[in-house]
Amino acid sequence: MTRKPLRFNAFVMNTNSHIHHGQWQRPEAQQTEFTDVNTWINVARLVEDAKFDAMFFADVVGHYGDADSSYEEYVKQGLQIPSNDPTVLLGALAVVTEHIGLATTSNVFQSHPFQFARQMATLDHMSNGRIAWNIVTGTQDNGARNFGLPQLTDHAERYAWADEYVDVLYKLLEGSWDDDAILKDREGFRYSDYSKVHKIYHEGQRYQVEGPLLSAPSPQRTPVLYQAGSSASGRDFAARNAEATFIIAPSIRTAEGLIKDTRERAVRHGRDAHDIAFFQGMSFVIGSTEEEARAKEKIIDENVSLEGYAAHAAVVDRDGRVYPPETPLSEVETNTVRGFLELAKKEITDREPLVADLAWNRAKANRVVGTPEQIADELERWQDIGVDGINVMNWVIPDSFQDFADHVMPVLRDRGLAQSEYAPGTLRKKLFGHDRLPDTHPAAKYRGAFANSERDPQGQLTGASI
Amino acid sequence: MTRKPLRFNAFVMNTNSHIHHGQWQRPEAQQTEFTDVNTWINVARLVEDAKFDAMFFADVVGHYGDADSSYEEYVKQGLQIPSNDPTVLLGALAVVTEHIGLATTSNVFQSHPFQFARQMATLDHMSNGRIAWNIVTGTQDNGARNFGLPQLTDHAERYAWADEYVDVLYKLLEGSWDDDAILKDREGFRYSDYSKVHKIYHEGQRYQVEGPLLSAPSPQRTPVLYQAGSSASGRDFAARNAEATFIIAPSIRTAEGLIKDTRERAVRHGRDAHDIAFFQGMSFVIGSTEEEARAKEKIIDENVSLEGYAAHAAVVDRDGRVYPPETPLSEVETNTVRGFLELAKKEITDREPLVADLAWNRAKANRVVGTPEQIADELERWQDIGVDGINVMNWVIPDSFQDFADHVMPVLRDRGLAQSEYAPGTLRKKLFGHDRLPDTHPAAKYRGAFANSERDPQGQLTGASI
Repeated sequence: MTRKPLRFNAFVMNTNSHIHHGQWQRPEAQQTEFTDVNTWINVARLVEDAKFDAMFFADVVGHYGDADSSYEEYVKQGLQIPSNDPTVLLGALAVVTEHIGLATTSNVFQSHPFQFARQMATLDHMSNGRIAWNIVTGTQDNGARNFGLPQLTDHAERYAWADEYVDVLYKLLEGSWDDDAILKDREGFRYSDYSKVHKIYHEGQRYQVEGPLLSAPSPQRTPVLYQAGSSASGRDFAARNAEATFIIAPSIRTAEGLIKDTRERAVRHGRDAHDIAFFQGMSFVIGSTEEEARAKEKIIDENVSLEGYAAHAAVVDRDGRVYPPETPLSEVETNTVRGFLELAKKEITDREPLVADLAWNRAKANRVVGTPEQIADELERWQDIGVDGINVMNWVIPDSFQDFADHVMPVLRDRGLAQSEYAPGTLRKKLFGHDRLPDTHPAAKYRGAFANSERDPQGQLTGASI
Repeated sequence: MTRKPLRFNAFVMNTNSHIHHGQWQRPEAQQTEFTDVNTWINVARLVEDAKFDAMFFADVVGHYGDADSSYEEYVKQGLQIPSNDPTVLLGALAVVTEHIGLATTSNVFQSHPFQFARQMATLDHMSNGRIAWNIVTGTQDNGARNFGLPQLTDHAERYAWADEYVDVLYKLLEGSWDDDAILKDREGFRYSDYSKVHKIYHEGQRYQVEGPLLSAPSPQRTPVLYQAGSSASGRDFAARNAEATFIIAPSIRTAEGLIKDTRERAVRHGRDAHDIAFFQGMSFVIGSTEEEARAKEKIIDENVSLEGYAAHAAVVDRDGRVYPPETPLSEVETNTVRGFLELAKKEITDREPLVADLAWNRAKANRVVGTPEQIADELERWQDIGVDGINVMNWVIPDSFQDFADHVMPVLRDRGLAQSEYAPGTLRKKLFGHDRLPDTHPAAKYRGAFANSERDPQGQLTGASI
């Protein structure tokens, strides 16, 4: 059976300790040098050589944990703090790569949609259409307070906010410049055709945006849309808007259910079930023999910081101190802990589950250990239930990506499970066969919609065909 | 007499028609390709080879003219619309250059100060300390409306806003991380020292920002601060905050007065008179003989779009239509026109001044035509009254910069008027001899000020030593 290629993203963050905590202490770990742009240029070139589809930057805008408590553990571990902005970094990566997609993360309160639309359009021009955006709504109260909000708004309200935010972006990116608006006509002295540039007069709950977008139309217009929420409202938002969804399902069965549910929601919203690609997050330990892989795993485990995983999961006391690993989880009251206990009760039956169990669970989650052939076998099982791609998470940078590129990719290619060459064109074209969002996407309705738009005496939009 | 080198910036904008309108129609003009990042990479490398000090990107966030009227002329001419974001472009230029400074423009309502501080810090890391920021408060009502404001706030209020905005930036960039906070201590497993990372708890009129800044301390911390306002409140803001001021004085005498006044204001604010460098905007027409220069000037003048200069100066009727060049200025009622008539009454005495006169005045303003030696003579005169540097404005990209680099720079170097090599270090070090803002700058008071900061039960900052 010939396989369809899986998609591969390098899932990283412009920080020291992103997902796998403690590994930075290894001498070969270069994530400690995240402020040096060459660290990221090296990774970008390496994964482009290996024909990865994209380099995907996660981000946060505040520290984890209770905003009123100590955040010492995060600072001590360099655990997502300090961290640098991913969006301006993409400007550099756009010009040192040629084919690979470049995804940034930005939340709805950190950047005004007019500013964000223009930065995305500019990057899309700079990269010849290789930009993606991971839509997030914020996860930390400290992040909210950095932007003048007393705390994170509740989950449903965050998605209502996201709905308006993407709506403004779609109007600006899809609706304000017609395709043939740019003329560059030197003889006729017309750079652009005014009849094809439109104000959008957005008047909403949170935003009033007149337009037009200042940027000329970029190759993809709207960047490729990633989204990672797995709650019901998150899935519904993804079903309506996302082109790629990032999941970290604890098992193939869970992934299957999640994918099926989200695809069904997409169809209910008038989209095609396969308008959304699903990327599962995974970490790999690769050996030429299983023994070699296990020996490498031993080094990884020796460097695991249980405190780091516990802190990342907000398993902290009221003063923000991480519970020691030997603390019984019965003494810890959080949603994360309750969720873990539910999952763990089948596996840990002979003793009381500890903070260390939760931390180890995270350190080992979606970890695949083995030879390249064994890893390929495992990836086939994920593909079989509908996973389209893998977000590869590193232990150390760049070696985790180098190992995957050197040893796993060739085996995957032999099976047809990884691409041998890049398809030409924009990131969306490479992933889905078209440069622009399909007509079934909610952004598409704004194309041409503002051709006769005006502001009426009350300041409201009139004459638009939405 | 041995001269001190003048500073040189390439003054550009990520658009088609920035300052000199009509020139884009010339076949050699590559500013039409502003969306192609290679256009800017080429300019950056060219001016870096020529030892320019910085590449300075102007910007706007809306179209010129009345926000309720037609903006056809701007779109037709590609006059600052379309235009792309300069900040993400600097990400690319940071990694294709090594020495040259990179200045972006961003106004106080387009980007939240927490987001902006992090993007600046990230770029400062990426460039090894070569970033500058041109502080602006907005100039177009349409720009304000793109960000949810009904119109531009008035001038004094805009500067009050800017005061708070830079205050938040200073707290984040100078006060939230101590110099030795980053340890990268693998053996001791401490990436950063928590005792040296501080929340800022800013509570102001427009912003509430908890902090800390997420970015690790960058080489310059606060980017080099440019400012361009020439009103009294603008000068006062510059006197307190700016390290470099961009002026477009119509004459040496005017420049002299403006420089003297601003330096005196700086001293009144406790700063050194020479903590602020003055850059005059100028355009050059260069020939190996004066005749050749005049012939080149003829081509420039043949390509001048009087409508473009008039539109840029907002000499438009109530429907937003540019007045035809032959329109008597007495029929046009704007502040710009009144200002021009005041200046022109000595020169145009035999007839009624026309829109064309105002447009030609702008097309010819600060234009220096001649041999490299004549240009050097003229630059000496500007230096003599206190100008520190020149913002070189282009007719066509890249030829205007190439001509200046090839023909004028060698003559300037012979006279000591231009540097032959870059000084090592950050942009601020190159310009002023130090990496960080001096102690007399208002940002300096936040260094170490938040070491014992806390939020009191009312949510206010307490324990800071400001």
